[in-house]
Amino acid sequence: MSATAYVELICVGNELLIGKTLNTNAHWLAKRITSLGLFVKRITVVGDDVDEIASAIRESIQRGSAFIITTGGLGPTFDDKTLEGVAKAIGRDLEENREALEMIKRKYEQYVAEGRIKKFEMTEYRIKMARLPKGAKPLPNPVGTAPGVFIEYGGVNLVMLPGVPQEMMAIFDESVAPLLRKVAGNKVFYEVSLNVRGIPESELAPLIDRVMNENPYVYIKSHPKISEKTYHIELHFSTTSDNQDMAKQRIERAVVQISELISERGGKIQPAQI
Amino acid sequence: MSATAYVELICVGNELLIGKTLNTNAHWLAKRITSLGLFVKRITVVGDDVDEIASAIRESIQRGSAFIITTGGLGPTFDDKTLEGVAKAIGRDLEENREALEMIKRKYEQYVAEGRIKKFEMTEYRIKMARLPKGAKPLPNPVGTAPGVFIEYGGVNLVMLPGVPQEMMAIFDESVAPLLRKVAGNKVFYEVSLNVRGIPESELAPLIDRVMNENPYVYIKSHPKISEKTYHIELHFSTTSDNQDMAKQRIERAVVQISELISERGGKIQPAQI
Repeated sequence: MSATAYVELICVGNELLIGKTLNTNAHWLAKRITSLGLFVKRITVVGDDVDEIASAIRESIQRGSAFIITTGGLGPTFDDKTLEGVAKAIGRDLEENREALEMIKRKYEQYVAEGRIKKFEMTEYRIKMARLPKGAKPLPNPVGTAPGVFIEYGGVNLVMLPGVPQEMMAIFDESVAPLLRKVAGNKVFYEVSLNVRGIPESELAPLIDRVMNENPYVYIKSHPKISEKTYHIELHFSTTSDNQDMAKQRIERAVVQISELISERGGKIQPAQI
Repeated sequence: MSATAYVELICVGNELLIGKTLNTNAHWLAKRITSLGLFVKRITVVGDDVDEIASAIRESIQRGSAFIITTGGLGPTFDDKTLEGVAKAIGRDLEENREALEMIKRKYEQYVAEGRIKKFEMTEYRIKMARLPKGAKPLPNPVGTAPGVFIEYGGVNLVMLPGVPQEMMAIFDESVAPLLRKVAGNKVFYEVSLNVRGIPESELAPLIDRVMNENPYVYIKSHPKISEKTYHIELHFSTTSDNQDMAKQRIERAVVQISELISERGGKIQPAQI
């Protein structure tokens, strides 16, 4: 992976902007992409608006993202506008994609066979889910109806996933993770977390500086927790490397160094869950 | 409130980009700001990087936001870079703010009085939290040490809040909500949610179109849920108005209309929790 190959997430949905829905999709994707050895550089949330979606996509392309992954806005209702926004951003028309149309038809045939619905017609609302930007490839949805969508555009990989978490996760694992793995190569992300008690963050700050200076590949971040009685800070150590053992060694060295410094100052340390 | 007065959120923190932390701050703020009658237009998440923070702020100013609210990056450690990013974005220097310095000093005096720490010095790490862009005003932090920050810049209100949720919420409620309320005037946000079972989303789509056409002030959004046995879709109705009764009436009219259409097609409807 070149140093600049990174991923941006663009989450589409008014429900995220009015605080109705917690953005667990971005959280899940960020964790997954990081653990695959890639780097998420930015997450953007926009509403169900073609111009907003198109702007967010265009800006992300201009920033040089290798992968842009969107969530939401692929369904049959009027407010599902992601593909229209993408088409606008990259200057391609929407057209009925034969492969996508077949996937959708087969889904409804399956729903009839299962007795979920009695019969079905390919209404304009159902055909809408198969109207993809020219040159796009539909990604099978093992859980729901609307396919995911993949487009290569001038070296950028655009991936559009549905907003329903189970559908988003299933398409990601089946069709997107293999692509990312190929780009990431052997890169691994390694992390460890410690709970530190009894020392305020402002006294930990110089210790973190010192240990980070001596361990240039390790990133240490402090997360203060509110506690009534004593200071409680989670210290998170992470590194990305193409060698799992090396990654582990680097983190362990930093953990030992900071633990000594904290103990000398009367702080208590315990491993924390990640 | 003018039609274009909207809010953008910028959340700063590598922990959000690696999927370590779920962005509950954005969710809480979006809900709160919406319920105050204002409109969140975009949420951006960037890492602990001065240039990334500065770009996000600059882009948001260029889009014409009335309020930009940031979370995270105000503490004493090396990776707390939000104020440096803001200063860079608006071309102002950082300087020691006397009022902020006093707030921070008083906090540590209080911690000594409570026995949390034995003594304290105003180290460079503690003074760092009082280094604000020129012309900024510190906002008292009732829960933690780092003050929030308020800056007016060419008609844009910049508000910087800490990343620790309890501190963010306390400063928002005490110092930010009153400002937003003034801008929003009498605007209220009103919402109702229904659970619809037995009809696929693609069959609800034309009904939503019809009811929205007849109720231009009501926004209806469908949220499909995964269910093994039958279709389950949450229908969310919302409107913003300067009259609470009017808002309620508008929503109720749309709910009655769509309920009839759904019942005619054999769907089951129940109120849903918001």
